[in-house]
Amino acid sequence: MTKKKDRLIYLPLGGAGEIGMNCYVYGYGPEGRERLIVVDLGLTFPDMDTTPGVDLILPDISWLAARADRIEAIFITHAHEDHIGALAHLWPQLKAQVFCRRFTGMLAAMKLEDRGLQPNVVSVVEPRPHAVEAGPFRVQFVPVSHSIPESSALIIDTPAGRVVHTGDFKLDGAPVVGEAFAPEEWHAIAKEGDGVHALMCDSTNIFSPRPGRSESTLAEPLTALVAGAGGMVVATTFASNVARLKTLAEAGRAAGRSVCLLGRAMKRMVTAAVESGVLTDFPSTVSPEQAVDIGRENLMLIVTGSQGERRAASAQLARGKYLGLQLAEGDLFLFSSKTIPGNERGVIRIMNAFSEMGVDVVDDHDGLYHVSGHANRPDLEGVHDLLRPKMLIPMHGEHRHLREHAKVASDKGIASEVATNGMMIDLTSGRPQVAEYIETGRVYLDGNVLIGAMDGVVRDRIRMALNGHVMVTVILDEQGEPLGDAWADAMGLAETGKSGAPLVEAIEADLTEFLNRADHRVLKDDDKLDEALRRIVRQVAMEEVGKKPEVTTVVSRLD
Amino acid sequence: MTKKKDRLIYLPLGGAGEIGMNCYVYGYGPEGRERLIVVDLGLTFPDMDTTPGVDLILPDISWLAARADRIEAIFITHAHEDHIGALAHLWPQLKAQVFCRRFTGMLAAMKLEDRGLQPNVVSVVEPRPHAVEAGPFRVQFVPVSHSIPESSALIIDTPAGRVVHTGDFKLDGAPVVGEAFAPEEWHAIAKEGDGVHALMCDSTNIFSPRPGRSESTLAEPLTALVAGAGGMVVATTFASNVARLKTLAEAGRAAGRSVCLLGRAMKRMVTAAVESGVLTDFPSTVSPEQAVDIGRENLMLIVTGSQGERRAASAQLARGKYLGLQLAEGDLFLFSSKTIPGNERGVIRIMNAFSEMGVDVVDDHDGLYHVSGHANRPDLEGVHDLLRPKMLIPMHGEHRHLREHAKVASDKGIASEVATNGMMIDLTSGRPQVAEYIETGRVYLDGNVLIGAMDGVVRDRIRMALNGHVMVTVILDEQGEPLGDAWADAMGLAETGKSGAPLVEAIEADLTEFLNRADHRVLKDDDKLDEALRRIVRQVAMEEVGKKPEVTTVVSRLD
Repeated sequence: MTKKKDRLIYLPLGGAGEIGMNCYVYGYGPEGRERLIVVDLGLTFPDMDTTPGVDLILPDISWLAARADRIEAIFITHAHEDHIGALAHLWPQLKAQVFCRRFTGMLAAMKLEDRGLQPNVVSVVEPRPHAVEAGPFRVQFVPVSHSIPESSALIIDTPAGRVVHTGDFKLDGAPVVGEAFAPEEWHAIAKEGDGVHALMCDSTNIFSPRPGRSESTLAEPLTALVAGAGGMVVATTFASNVARLKTLAEAGRAAGRSVCLLGRAMKRMVTAAVESGVLTDFPSTVSPEQAVDIGRENLMLIVTGSQGERRAASAQLARGKYLGLQLAEGDLFLFSSKTIPGNERGVIRIMNAFSEMGVDVVDDHDGLYHVSGHANRPDLEGVHDLLRPKMLIPMHGEHRHLREHAKVASDKGIASEVATNGMMIDLTSGRPQVAEYIETGRVYLDGNVLIGAMDGVVRDRIRMALNGHVMVTVILDEQGEPLGDAWADAMGLAETGKSGAPLVEAIEADLTEFLNRADHRVLKDDDKLDEALRRIVRQVAMEEVGKKPEVTTVVSRLD
Repeated sequence: MTKKKDRLIYLPLGGAGEIGMNCYVYGYGPEGRERLIVVDLGLTFPDMDTTPGVDLILPDISWLAARADRIEAIFITHAHEDHIGALAHLWPQLKAQVFCRRFTGMLAAMKLEDRGLQPNVVSVVEPRPHAVEAGPFRVQFVPVSHSIPESSALIIDTPAGRVVHTGDFKLDGAPVVGEAFAPEEWHAIAKEGDGVHALMCDSTNIFSPRPGRSESTLAEPLTALVAGAGGMVVATTFASNVARLKTLAEAGRAAGRSVCLLGRAMKRMVTAAVESGVLTDFPSTVSPEQAVDIGRENLMLIVTGSQGERRAASAQLARGKYLGLQLAEGDLFLFSSKTIPGNERGVIRIMNAFSEMGVDVVDDHDGLYHVSGHANRPDLEGVHDLLRPKMLIPMHGEHRHLREHAKVASDKGIASEVATNGMMIDLTSGRPQVAEYIETGRVYLDGNVLIGAMDGVVRDRIRMALNGHVMVTVILDEQGEPLGDAWADAMGLAETGKSGAPLVEAIEADLTEFLNRADHRVLKDDDKLDEALRRIVRQVAMEEVGKKPEVTTVVSRLD
């Protein structure tokens, strides 16, 4: 066996070609024997169109699981679900030590414990200059601003050079919670050693042409909005946006209102933020039980459900009384958030329910009450210029984001490549080169089991939802003759068809007629009989109601 | 019987509390014996979240159908599906003469013929001053600008006064196709007789704070965009936006490109527009067969599918070759359209598919390539001021739009009321008064039958999609004893559960065990047996895969 040269590889398993489900692998060593580290184990959320009934969508980490003995460590950049949400579900396949900062670590530990795993696999890491040695990798956490506390970029030093993995970030000189953007720190990162070999960079907001705004710019308009309100004020935002929660709560306090947090996730986040020390001076809050007794003009609720989620507090309030609290004419409901594409219908449903109650709904229409947690195009360009990497691989984005980001890089003369999930990139030389295509994809947490995206379970659900389902039961006696009539049941189909007869009766009539005149060879052959029964069901259903249902046949033979 | 006084009533059956499915009724006469006219018979579109498998959603016109003998006429303001789409489906229940302008009439006739109805029930009406006498109503069509040719407001004169029903409209001084906004005409409408008694007004864009822009402002940026393109140019917009098609085609011609229309709906619209005389000077087009032989730098396609519809031309091109045409690196795809809330995922899917092909996708991000067809808030206020109605009833909007519009009116001292579907409003006095609440809602065209929204068919589909479906077959012999083992089939559920055994085998094992030890009284009682079988299936499924499936049981008794 010839000795292979060491190489530095990058392999996205999620997040490259989509927004969400981030999971990236780096490797260093001889080809096929690289030592590996994993950055983020995120999930994405199902929808009725493509994944009905599914609970969570996780990256397919089969490639990684088959090489678990080569994994040195798992690093989590921050505690958003699309970066940490798969950790507890997939950790048992990887079993490596998990490194992250304190706040992230608290949430990681809770998630592991929720699934019966040991939280001591999580190691809390101090930010740079502290470093974690993981095989050939030396990893430092660099605080960045984002819409959750303690988000971090990773400086990954390898024998082939320095990789900067931004994670999700924005440039914020006054982020309300956490460290302000420090250009001199980034400058230092670029200056050390041979500089930045490769920059793996967040692409979410590459299409936003104007510089991003600071979280701190929201205090003034939010304070004015709450001060001007007459009735109860209710604000929703992402529970994990602890800086926003603070700004909102302070706006409430400034208006002399008692602040009440509603929603399990929100209380969990604030508790973790306070306990980890990232959140200080949060205004004191009242419980829902106490809130009930406070005059509406003196009350402000901060609630979960900014994306219209049906079980969150905002949707509960939109349906009526929740924990004794109820909105009414003259109250104000604020979406201090952006609606994620795909969630519009749920959000609009809530807006209209509040409108029916006479509640004034304010959203981020004018950009006054929300800022993004991601760097916009000019900010990204600023980071490119600060770090001056040899290569730039865009990550965390749909294909169009990655492509645009790669273009921006190429236009500056930085070598770049659109690397989507499953594309292993060799970074060794200073020019990204596709090394291999890895079979990858998604797995579904469905109830309490993991199912493959392609194994047909979800496809069958979608078919039943679109076409309805007919079940046929036929009993054949010892001689193989039909015993009694065929029986049909239908679900998800119109009861009555064009003929005016019940659909199942029309189906049964044709099935029975078929059975009575069917050839013995057909009746004896399970496959042929099944096929004939299906054909009849679909034919009758098409004539009667214009649909071709899914069909399940049960042929019971008494022999 | 005391003689009742004549009254003027307004009853929205669709469109008031939603954007789409417009259907409004006006009545005049003694209470309960009013003569009626119908304005618009529109539909709305299903979605996977709430109406999987449904083809179209129509207003529930039971109230109207029960009073068909009192209907004088049906008026259609314009040919958008949400105003005309239910006509052919619901006309058989109403059987009244249909009045509309020429272009609308051509499309109405096609729709009726498509469903085997006589197109001669459609009467084409010239615009004001021409009038249609319909019982106590005298109705004039006033040309307005919108995103389809020959959209019209209706002037409805009644013994109780003049009603102006705006339909969908915008104010456009240079609409490219059709008549320009003429304030003097609206002024005249307000001056005649006793002025405007009631204004029923489009509310779609009440939340858009800036004045609307003219369709003609798009010519310059679109021409520049196409002129600057190197490869093939493909543009999509609503097929019915004939003015936009013209602007796009002219931009193509100006750049020396051959123009090809793709998509059935688009060709149908252009043909109707040319034949009805509303569209003149449309650049000559080439067929897809001819287009294949034209160099991509000399070709421009104008295609259907701006909302990401899976079967439309844009989605077909996103999947690969369509009618011999295929996009490639360096081509340009333009969305000259706005994405309707709820359609984001489909549109984004197409954008990314094109990105993978190396196609540059341009959307209306900067407002350069699309303008709305609806009047914005300042434009609406302009119309209020021009018409100076006694009352304003907002229509065509979700609840939040109607409420905001009513507020705007009230702030000007105009009497207003939020009237949602099913609220009959008495307009006689000059102050809107709720007269009655009518049972209303939606019906679904499902395959070729109409089903009720509340009759459980769609609910069952959604449940099967979320929970999966298990079918159980049990045979009991002449003595009521189980004959053989229970049989289970599952659809839309994981094959293997926690125990490692196939799910259906785990279910069958527990069912068989139950049957073998079940009390005779349970086995004899269909309901009790059914309930027991369901409970076992759900319990096993919950343990094995963490889901509670829908269950269908078939118990065959050989006695």
